[in-house]
Amino acid sequence: MKNVALFGAGRIGQIHAHNLAALPGVKLVAVCDPVAENASRLAQSLGAAVSTPEAVFADASIDVVAIASPTDTHSDLITRAAAARKHIFCEKPVDLSVQRAEACARAVAEANIACMIGFQRRFDPTFSEAQQRLARGEIGRAEMLVVTSRDPGAPPAQYLKGSGGIFRDMLIHDFDVFRWILGADGDEAVWLSATGSCQVDPAIGEIGDIDSAAVTLRTRQGRLCQINTSRRAAYGYDQRFEVLGSTGLLACGNHRPTEVQQWDANGVKSDLPEHFFLQRYREAYRLELAHFFDRLQSGAAFRTTIADGVAAQKLADAATASWQSGQAVSL
Amino acid sequence: MKNVALFGAGRIGQIHAHNLAALPGVKLVAVCDPVAENASRLAQSLGAAVSTPEAVFADASIDVVAIASPTDTHSDLITRAAAARKHIFCEKPVDLSVQRAEACARAVAEANIACMIGFQRRFDPTFSEAQQRLARGEIGRAEMLVVTSRDPGAPPAQYLKGSGGIFRDMLIHDFDVFRWILGADGDEAVWLSATGSCQVDPAIGEIGDIDSAAVTLRTRQGRLCQINTSRRAAYGYDQRFEVLGSTGLLACGNHRPTEVQQWDANGVKSDLPEHFFLQRYREAYRLELAHFFDRLQSGAAFRTTIADGVAAQKLADAATASWQSGQAVSL
Amino acid sequence: MKNVALFGAGRIGQIHAHNLAALPGVKLVAVCDPVAENASRLAQSLGAAVSTPEAVFADASIDVVAIASPTDTHSDLITRAAAARKHIFCEKPVDLSVQRAEACARAVAEANIACMIGFQRRFDPTFSEAQQRLARGEIGRAEMLVVTSRDPGAPPAQYLKGSGGIFRDMLIHDFDVFRWILGADGDEAVWLSATGSCQVDPAIGEIGDIDSAAVTLRTRQGRLCQINTSRRAAYGYDQRFEVLGSTGLLACGNHRPTEVQQWDANGVKSDLPEHFFLQRYREAYRLELAHFFDRLQSGAAFRTTIADGVAAQKLADAATASWQSGQAVSL
Amino acid sequence: MKNVALFGAGRIGQIHAHNLAALPGVKLVAVCDPVAENASRLAQSLGAAVSTPEAVFADASIDVVAIASPTDTHSDLITRAAAARKHIFCEKPVDLSVQRAEACARAVAEANIACMIGFQRRFDPTFSEAQQRLARGEIGRAEMLVVTSRDPGAPPAQYLKGSGGIFRDMLIHDFDVFRWILGADGDEAVWLSATGSCQVDPAIGEIGDIDSAAVTLRTRQGRLCQINTSRRAAYGYDQRFEVLGSTGLLACGNHRPTEVQQWDANGVKSDLPEHFFLQRYREAYRLELAHFFDRLQSGAAFRTTIADGVAAQKLADAATASWQSGQAVSL
Repeated sequence: MKNVALFGAGRIGQIHAHNLAALPGVKLVAVCDPVAENASRLAQSLGAAVSTPEAVFADASIDVVAIASPTDTHSDLITRAAAARKHIFCEKPVDLSVQRAEACARAVAEANIACMIGFQRRFDPTFSEAQQRLARGEIGRAEMLVVTSRDPGAPPAQYLKGSGGIFRDMLIHDFDVFRWILGADGDEAVWLSATGSCQVDPAIGEIGDIDSAAVTLRTRQGRLCQINTSRRAAYGYDQRFEVLGSTGLLACGNHRPTEVQQWDANGVKSDLPEHFFLQRYREAYRLELAHFFDRLQSGAAFRTTIADGVAAQKLADAATASWQSGQAVSL
Repeated sequence: MKNVALFGAGRIGQIHAHNLAALPGVKLVAVCDPVAENASRLAQSLGAAVSTPEAVFADASIDVVAIASPTDTHSDLITRAAAARKHIFCEKPVDLSVQRAEACARAVAEANIACMIGFQRRFDPTFSEAQQRLARGEIGRAEMLVVTSRDPGAPPAQYLKGSGGIFRDMLIHDFDVFRWILGADGDEAVWLSATGSCQVDPAIGEIGDIDSAAVTLRTRQGRLCQINTSRRAAYGYDQRFEVLGSTGLLACGNHRPTEVQQWDANGVKSDLPEHFFLQRYREAYRLELAHFFDRLQSGAAFRTTIADGVAAQKLADAATASWQSGQAVSL
Repeated sequence: MKNVALFGAGRIGQIHAHNLAALPGVKLVAVCDPVAENASRLAQSLGAAVSTPEAVFADASIDVVAIASPTDTHSDLITRAAAARKHIFCEKPVDLSVQRAEACARAVAEANIACMIGFQRRFDPTFSEAQQRLARGEIGRAEMLVVTSRDPGAPPAQYLKGSGGIFRDMLIHDFDVFRWILGADGDEAVWLSATGSCQVDPAIGEIGDIDSAAVTLRTRQGRLCQINTSRRAAYGYDQRFEVLGSTGLLACGNHRPTEVQQWDANGVKSDLPEHFFLQRYREAYRLELAHFFDRLQSGAAFRTTIADGVAAQKLADAATASWQSGQAVSL
Repeated sequence: MKNVALFGAGRIGQIHAHNLAALPGVKLVAVCDPVAENASRLAQSLGAAVSTPEAVFADASIDVVAIASPTDTHSDLITRAAAARKHIFCEKPVDLSVQRAEACARAVAEANIACMIGFQRRFDPTFSEAQQRLARGEIGRAEMLVVTSRDPGAPPAQYLKGSGGIFRDMLIHDFDVFRWILGADGDEAVWLSATGSCQVDPAIGEIGDIDSAAVTLRTRQGRLCQINTSRRAAYGYDQRFEVLGSTGLLACGNHRPTEVQQWDANGVKSDLPEHFFLQRYREAYRLELAHFFDRLQSGAAFRTTIADGVAAQKLADAATASWQSGQAVSL
């Protein structure tokens, strides 16, 4: 039985808590959150105790920490967890600073603990099926990737101030998808061009960020990737990608709540995509934690490592620089 | 907290057991199954005790029995549960004999206990969304229902010997869907015609049954329903219906494991439907038990009652008679 | 060069006229219609002459007559064309009376002329592709056919008075599809049950007809077919069928004017089906005439013969009788 | 009646010839092609005469020239047609040199003749429906455009030598789509970044061209466009675009030959896209010529002008420069 402490009892923390509770061989023993009420409500509902990071790191019975607290706490918690020799599951990103993220990676390596970063898209049933078919050669050699990644609506500009900007906040996932899909054979980005604009909310522009962006990457082997993103898709959360291979195409569509079609004088109407990430990636969140504990047990490699976290962060930095300069970046 | 005893630790019993375990306010305390090993494995994995019907009915601390044992045990268990004043969730059908099913209904009524029959299709996200839109008038008045209901493969003829025949074994669900969709305003079947044949497995014909069937119903108000069924759809479990209304159509499609499309020289290929009922109705099984305990708590009516079980059984009997005589039946 | 005379300059006559004009090796020389203005407008626009049946049958330079006049003129024109030894393309049905239709068939056979009946659905790109795949064995042995056949709206009851009733007027096409799809190996209907009701327009009931119908057929080999129809589908012309085979399914969907999908707060909206038969079967009408002249030239058999016309008519008669009696009919 | 002379009896010339022959009020009188056999076969089959450019320009009875000859003849024929005061329909592009294309535009303007460039995608039923919905405001303000534009296979590198490179040869259409969709209110590209690689055929690289490309554009108003292209899509001709607007999305899918779905043990299989441009744009080619003569008659503006041809060419030049330099281009 693995004893787990959870940092963060917010939206994503609650998801992980319930998934932890349902996993065989895993016991959620402690919940930490500066907002005492959140911590205690979540802990109570699942039979865990409220705790603090200090107590968690001092508690030899705790094997694993799951980090779902705000981004700016990640690197500190990772470093301390490594020092306390707890295995780590951490939500993306490692840190908004590549330098600090690399420091975390070193700390993890030196402590020789397991550390997985929560790029849940790699566990989405649709996306991972596509990746597996690609790996089996069902569409030949991958040549081109087109990613559409849009949120249903923009949060208030104030909220975005500490986000690191759209490339680090939203596209970090898409950069990871790019690496996962086009980099399977060790190929990697050598050229990146990013641009963007404020079309959704001028207040986002006023804080120096953008809400619409387009990124293109080219790899050493000549593979191409285009990513388009917006903070607002009026029809909901839009999460799709298509891989063109030498013998075919794999297209990953959105998930829908139901398979009802309504035909009437207005047209043939299907369901909108699942509303947002909590719905769309519900199964992915469940599967990534199951994977974490499965691999922790077997000692096999995680599907998403801290090195993946650092690498995606570097692409986000490069995209930010490209957007700001208006010029392409060589990597 | 409601204490629940489960009868039956087979395929469907295991599904219900896990759903019971995850429900707040519900405690699975006992599992009964003549195959001791099945009972004990399931009980252990969920922290329940192995028990017997006698012990369950004698145990005043048990509030609810969930019946997932073979069909021929249902009426006996219902009657004894009613006598012991336990609330009942029972898998379909109530009984292969309408007479015995009606006796069960009387026993339940006299004991004044709650009894819900597990017509899980009414809880399927797609089907129930369609039913709700119909109820809200989104396609006007319902006029016609077309049901496609096919299994991925026929079980051995031997296994089907005690099934009551295809109309009672397979179409019972579809007759319930017919009543749910076209009977919302009290309308009911007045005319039924059924036919069928053996096209899948001659051994099924040798035991006096068929493996392919077609049923048509007409209601008092002139609504029409066609149901087609087969024991074998080579592409998997096919569960669809379409309702034509005066201002539109609602079409319920199959569910798919993923939303990957593969385009290659052979065509554009999507996933097959979910493999069989355990996959397709996974969410429906979860939702029907949640509904049961929610309504048990609130005292509101169940979506599927024992009267619904009896009524579907009568239609199955009528279809059997129509098929055997080759003539339509007035109801 | 084949010289052709056209009877009927109405809606369907105009379609055929333009298709004839575009065919290589074919010359539309004469147009006949009791409404002189219609005949002359159509003839002028295509460089043909206005004529009369008498003149056409007396004109040795005319090789072919295309009959697109009202149903009650068909048998007379067929008989006279046979006597004049003109080859015949005739719109469905041959005649509302099976007896007269059979007389036409005899006249055609005795005159040893070519005669094709316009069951255009057999030339629809989607339907004929399905039929060819079935013939190639791509889904194994055909077992079950489900046909959905609905008009966008009911004509005035007055107009339907001379139509022969819904089974002869609308379902004649579907009976032909049934024979084409399930009868390829000589199999044929041995049992038929039909029912129906008036749900769209009570005036249709007052003239002794129905507007909603459901037919089931069983063949000698045990194949099953269900046909559902309505005079009104609020969403347009609904023309689909599905064939279940021993190793798969072929599903024929509606055609759409465009492939635009609109995603917005209301859902994901695709185009409605093509509005009505002139749109949906535009290509089929073109292809059936091309087939007629191609086979006329080569002497090979037509895809749809006068015998097919008679056979479909007999099924329509049987369905009418079944509906009226409320009982199944053996064939 | 407008008398028309056609230059070019190749693949695309034949398409236009047959569409001209079917247009009311239009008469194809002359066909010119250096390959005498091609000219004479096409002319004969449609009742036109074989001619030469000299004779055509000297013939006062000819009103219109349709130019479907090789690209390097366009500017010469346009200039001479303008001098001879013939109205012009010309296949894209005007010329591979922007300078020469601009000279053509001046010649046309000075001669005060009508000149339309054949960007047939603007007449595709799906694409033009999307454009009209956008223009009606059905998805609010256009913000982002994603274009997928792929050929089924690469022609021999030798053939591509005179093509001007992938951006001028293939993407010229997509640049026009960009201008049509995102430039309706006068908005225009201010920033462009292009990259690409040779992934399909190394011989294409040896002639200094690429076979896979990705272009991003940003407009003055901040709108974004991404175009991805490949000379080879193993599944056929892939022609799609999606426009994200402030209140929704319009997605234009591929067209399919039939609407048959085949469900079997391998999956649910739909048709591949129409094979190549002659099939996909068959209707578009018909509609663009009808539009040309309709507007010629009414004097209203063409949907695609020579100015559009020049503008698309400039974007192709900019993309070529961006790809070659590896840097973004300001426009």
